[in-house]
Amino acid sequence: MSYNTFGHLFRVTTWGESHGPALGATVDGCPPGVALDEAMIQTWLDKRKPGQNKNTTQRKEPDEVKILSGVFEGRTTGTPIQLMIENTDQRSKDYGDIAQTFRPGHADITYHQKYGLRDYRGGGRSSARETAARVAASGVARAALAQLAPKVEIKGYMVQMGPKVIDRNRFDWDAIDQNDFWCPDAAVAAEWEDYLDFLRRKDHNSVGAIVEVVARGVPAGLGAPVYGKLDTDLAAAMMSINAVKGVEIGEGMAAASLTGRDNADEIFMGNDGQPVYTSNHAGGILGGISTGQDVVVRFAVKPTSSILSARQSIRIDGTPAEVVTKGRHDPCVGIRAVPVGEAMMACVILDHLLLDRGQTGGQRGHIGPA
Amino acid sequence: MSYNTFGHLFRVTTWGESHGPALGATVDGCPPGVALDEAMIQTWLDKRKPGQNKNTTQRKEPDEVKILSGVFEGRTTGTPIQLMIENTDQRSKDYGDIAQTFRPGHADITYHQKYGLRDYRGGGRSSARETAARVAASGVARAALAQLAPKVEIKGYMVQMGPKVIDRNRFDWDAIDQNDFWCPDAAVAAEWEDYLDFLRRKDHNSVGAIVEVVARGVPAGLGAPVYGKLDTDLAAAMMSINAVKGVEIGEGMAAASLTGRDNADEIFMGNDGQPVYTSNHAGGILGGISTGQDVVVRFAVKPTSSILSARQSIRIDGTPAEVVTKGRHDPCVGIRAVPVGEAMMACVILDHLLLDRGQTGGQRGHIGPA
Amino acid sequence: MSYNTFGHLFRVTTWGESHGPALGATVDGCPPGVALDEAMIQTWLDKRKPGQNKNTTQRKEPDEVKILSGVFEGRTTGTPIQLMIENTDQRSKDYGDIAQTFRPGHADITYHQKYGLRDYRGGGRSSARETAARVAASGVARAALAQLAPKVEIKGYMVQMGPKVIDRNRFDWDAIDQNDFWCPDAAVAAEWEDYLDFLRRKDHNSVGAIVEVVARGVPAGLGAPVYGKLDTDLAAAMMSINAVKGVEIGEGMAAASLTGRDNADEIFMGNDGQPVYTSNHAGGILGGISTGQDVVVRFAVKPTSSILSARQSIRIDGTPAEVVTKGRHDPCVGIRAVPVGEAMMACVILDHLLLDRGQTGGQRGHIGPA
Amino acid sequence: MSYNTFGHLFRVTTWGESHGPALGATVDGCPPGVALDEAMIQTWLDKRKPGQNKNTTQRKEPDEVKILSGVFEGRTTGTPIQLMIENTDQRSKDYGDIAQTFRPGHADITYHQKYGLRDYRGGGRSSARETAARVAASGVARAALAQLAPKVEIKGYMVQMGPKVIDRNRFDWDAIDQNDFWCPDAAVAAEWEDYLDFLRRKDHNSVGAIVEVVARGVPAGLGAPVYGKLDTDLAAAMMSINAVKGVEIGEGMAAASLTGRDNADEIFMGNDGQPVYTSNHAGGILGGISTGQDVVVRFAVKPTSSILSARQSIRIDGTPAEVVTKGRHDPCVGIRAVPVGEAMMACVILDHLLLDRGQTGGQRGHIGPA
Repeated sequence: MSYNTFGHLFRVTTWGESHGPALGATVDGCPPGVALDEAMIQTWLDKRKPGQNKNTTQRKEPDEVKILSGVFEGRTTGTPIQLMIENTDQRSKDYGDIAQTFRPGHADITYHQKYGLRDYRGGGRSSARETAARVAASGVARAALAQLAPKVEIKGYMVQMGPKVIDRNRFDWDAIDQNDFWCPDAAVAAEWEDYLDFLRRKDHNSVGAIVEVVARGVPAGLGAPVYGKLDTDLAAAMMSINAVKGVEIGEGMAAASLTGRDNADEIFMGNDGQPVYTSNHAGGILGGISTGQDVVVRFAVKPTSSILSARQSIRIDGTPAEVVTKGRHDPCVGIRAVPVGEAMMACVILDHLLLDRGQTGGQRGHIGPA
Repeated sequence: MSYNTFGHLFRVTTWGESHGPALGATVDGCPPGVALDEAMIQTWLDKRKPGQNKNTTQRKEPDEVKILSGVFEGRTTGTPIQLMIENTDQRSKDYGDIAQTFRPGHADITYHQKYGLRDYRGGGRSSARETAARVAASGVARAALAQLAPKVEIKGYMVQMGPKVIDRNRFDWDAIDQNDFWCPDAAVAAEWEDYLDFLRRKDHNSVGAIVEVVARGVPAGLGAPVYGKLDTDLAAAMMSINAVKGVEIGEGMAAASLTGRDNADEIFMGNDGQPVYTSNHAGGILGGISTGQDVVVRFAVKPTSSILSARQSIRIDGTPAEVVTKGRHDPCVGIRAVPVGEAMMACVILDHLLLDRGQTGGQRGHIGPA
Repeated sequence: MSYNTFGHLFRVTTWGESHGPALGATVDGCPPGVALDEAMIQTWLDKRKPGQNKNTTQRKEPDEVKILSGVFEGRTTGTPIQLMIENTDQRSKDYGDIAQTFRPGHADITYHQKYGLRDYRGGGRSSARETAARVAASGVARAALAQLAPKVEIKGYMVQMGPKVIDRNRFDWDAIDQNDFWCPDAAVAAEWEDYLDFLRRKDHNSVGAIVEVVARGVPAGLGAPVYGKLDTDLAAAMMSINAVKGVEIGEGMAAASLTGRDNADEIFMGNDGQPVYTSNHAGGILGGISTGQDVVVRFAVKPTSSILSARQSIRIDGTPAEVVTKGRHDPCVGIRAVPVGEAMMACVILDHLLLDRGQTGGQRGHIGPA
Repeated sequence: MSYNTFGHLFRVTTWGESHGPALGATVDGCPPGVALDEAMIQTWLDKRKPGQNKNTTQRKEPDEVKILSGVFEGRTTGTPIQLMIENTDQRSKDYGDIAQTFRPGHADITYHQKYGLRDYRGGGRSSARETAARVAASGVARAALAQLAPKVEIKGYMVQMGPKVIDRNRFDWDAIDQNDFWCPDAAVAAEWEDYLDFLRRKDHNSVGAIVEVVARGVPAGLGAPVYGKLDTDLAAAMMSINAVKGVEIGEGMAAASLTGRDNADEIFMGNDGQPVYTSNHAGGILGGISTGQDVVVRFAVKPTSSILSARQSIRIDGTPAEVVTKGRHDPCVGIRAVPVGEAMMACVILDHLLLDRGQTGGQRGHIGPA
């Protein structure tokens, strides 16, 4: 049992609290010979970094990653890679008043119940800051994928904020990096901006979101029945992200409304001798194994529990308390979950690529004329 | 990496194919001294058994479980419990025509691509028949829970079939066992019956479903941050079930539409000195750790891919083929997923109960006057 | 944590008690496409089988293995392989008198202390009979090795019985299969026969032994620092065998007596462009990784605790008891440990071969002119 | 598979190279509420620290540990504890000449063969310096044991250096901390000193050693059949230490020479109602489970491969090279293996204490009148 580790052959253990001296990730199982330096990891961390625009927490952290081990002369050696990010902007005084009080929707009460004590500063271990370590680790995974499976491309984006959903007819891959929400629909992004502004400034409220992550170029054959399925690991990976309450593959929950005839992804032989499908209801996974189509995962992020509106709760001594969470909080934590979802996808795909070698040597069953 | 194993301390490895001589589960880590016999396990298997009514596959399997090890004089000994179910009604001739053809929506093509060969009889390892082994294993988990945490009650039911959703105002716990669909809304159950009849007889089609599983009486404090979360393991457990495409905890995907104010489960002190909550948007889990409220999980099951309507596909040699799947198939495989969902819940709860002891000794942080 | 499982990617879970209905092994992670049938496994089981000559237990078990899953049309499918051996010669009445008494040197007392109950019939789970399941599993490993690494040859033999050690100058590979002791020194084998006869018939005693297992043709590069070392896994594998009290790699404990100059295995370039070594003090493993030399493991098996001579002990109720163990016991259990040691070697080597693919893809760093 | 992790519930992942910026241990699964600070860990590190006397390497490292996470206000929180030791005395120039040459007896050649590249500075990951991280981690284990099982005492010492063995009749627990060799026999310690002086100064040689580690006060019932045995995990733990070539429990390899009558540890009822044994040939473990007697482990450490005497080897390009290893090396690396062996014992005992709770709740079967 690895409480703070995920992955099978590519294993990531994150450590650290929001307001401790540092946090990071111990990455074991990266193949040797992968070109890697701190700048390559920093790229992904910068994408997740707080304080980049008014829609996310105003906490300013440089989030500079240091590689402490496992890389020699610019290449991975096959030994554990220690990634450390020092905490620098720790305004612990902001959090002193919650030492004795359980914030509704937070893990304060369950950590107390389980462990009998907790590092209450900034949520301690349950802070979304932990996800910085995952994003750093994914920089290693991305570098390894670039060498082992260069066709793999991973892209995340937001498809819903509160009641406002993107219009798939306006889906534009290029738009994703051009707004503050990783939104592929520029029109709805403008609406989101107004809505979030209202929530933060007027309504003292927050809102949930849905994030979608797509992996293209994933070879057919990754995943293993029946508990090492690719979708099983993706579901676990996404559900482990703070505030996530639902995970979908392909059609997801909507598959319940479909009939078998509509849901069938019919198969044809493509011009390049590879199977092609008329649709992708399956989200690129059949029987837990990748088909070669896009792997499509969605997850729902609940609204930030830390809001300026008063909510009822209790203190450790059992007395009632009214909680108003001041401090620097994301009104829609789903936005910053986009690079985290990408990070988990990258790590899971690499892990299964390595596993597949260990299972089968990576050969594939042939389809086509003998 | 355990391809066919789930659980951390209570570990279940399922084995066997749909049309091999037998299938079963190797259950390791059951605490010693638990009262257990074959009849206790058979109860749960009978609930899942095919051929019980016209809405499920007409395959007739007695599904009789034998305990081959780990139980002595009616009590578990702490050693591995081998559960075997012999396959008796294997009409392999029904499947001969799919040896060379990939059925759309099935794992035929991905198993071939990954492994280069497959046991095509009845779907082999990817058959829903594998879930009988999970249900058998859950009989062990239930027996252990009955001794270790007798307050835990687990109940699954269907809340949606195709477009038809239950009315929560008509929710009746007693109704669940009184219709063929484990449906808590007797009125919608009647509609489902007509709808399924139409799909099977007239439309030669199938349909998806949503199953909800609730665990009551789960003590606060189960689960561990940040990758050993209770919801992470539940998501993986449910996603590993055949045909599942989405998993939700509490509000699930709908959490995206809520604001922080609405989503907050406010906390009060109950008369018994335990925290009580005004609502359960969180589904009984905060920060990956149980709160003591009901643990609520939902999952979507896609429509059965095996239908009598023709769908386009290819053969191993790449030539096109029209697939019409005859044989004895469930028009709504979601129905039989209900006891499977319950089974996974039972195993995960027991596993985390054992883990919690190993983490903390099972003590709880006190809430209330010192 | 897998109490009854060993291996990382090639995973073997044994189950069953000495006197239950059956015992066996659940083998997960065997690569697909390996030619396998029951006869191939039976070969190895027959080698271990009791009752073959007067030097081992006279219990007669056909030990017939059945493959219940994971093989289709004579080839492995990549899914779990269930191997079952039914128990047929269970004279439980022989053991009734030990239900309340702890036999010295046996696990009776510790099982009772840990679990509060035990299947006392024939030692239950702690019986050497469990090793039949390991040997069956190794038949799968051998079949896989034959396809993936056909140069690998594994051979075990006894090098010491009680005080009588083989003379390495008389070492004869062909002699191993020509006596009842898997002894490479025919002269000492004759002495052992007399000695064992005396112990069994006159002295009512038993004796310990040392077994050596060699794997030839293992490619360089298997194993991973620093806790996934090949020697670490071999040490665990051998120590897990019943009655084993010590494990050595290469020089083993004798390395303590050597100086660095003597212990150095000097390296030269061979005619085939591969490194050659002047000696093999290291036992084929440096820094936990195979060198390409023979992998050499030795383990000590304690004398059988079940003897006809009276030993003092206690009953469950704390009263004193004199224990004389009747029944059919091996006077030197080390003899039958030879095929078990081979079995563990085969499983570990295959596991690391698969792991190595998942780590590095199986490429090797080049030695020689660029 | 965890290449650089050991333990089941108490998990230690070490990371870092000899000459990188830092090394350390990520410790997951420490129970909450354990009193812990850096000074408590430093105590054990100081015991292992190089350069303390003329018999060990003259590399001077302060080896100061920093706790980066998992401890709040002097108590563990149940979250991962990151321990970092910065490398300060890295004379990399000493090692430049081995970049292209494989030192005999070292992992240089196998790392190259497996990974295709290696951090050659000071042995990189295969340096004995990695054991500093283990010792740091054991500081956490010791602190946890002090609270959970305060009767447990762990003590290591050297019992053999080269051909010179201690006299058990002169065994003196108090002597252990009073000489440079952790030797319980003051007379032989004096001989060792002269011998080592000769090896280092005159003979330009090194020598092997045997270390024994004893754990007292370990409760009966730790360990689990048949692959989660306490001795299995101890064997793996000790064999994973650099340069270890053999591991023994209790009688160890000498068990081969004993008869069953001599090897039997007879059992009586003690005055305190607990079983007592007339001897401890078993080393405190029966059937893989602790008996309550002293747990006794021994391991052999090969002579340091780095010596000033010339040995033949090859370069990466295949050309022959004569290797004389200058630099600051331990002539008997076994000395500094003593605290490392203690460290592994502490971690394994704590791990099994936690596991036992998860298996059985920690209750014990009763022995004595009902």
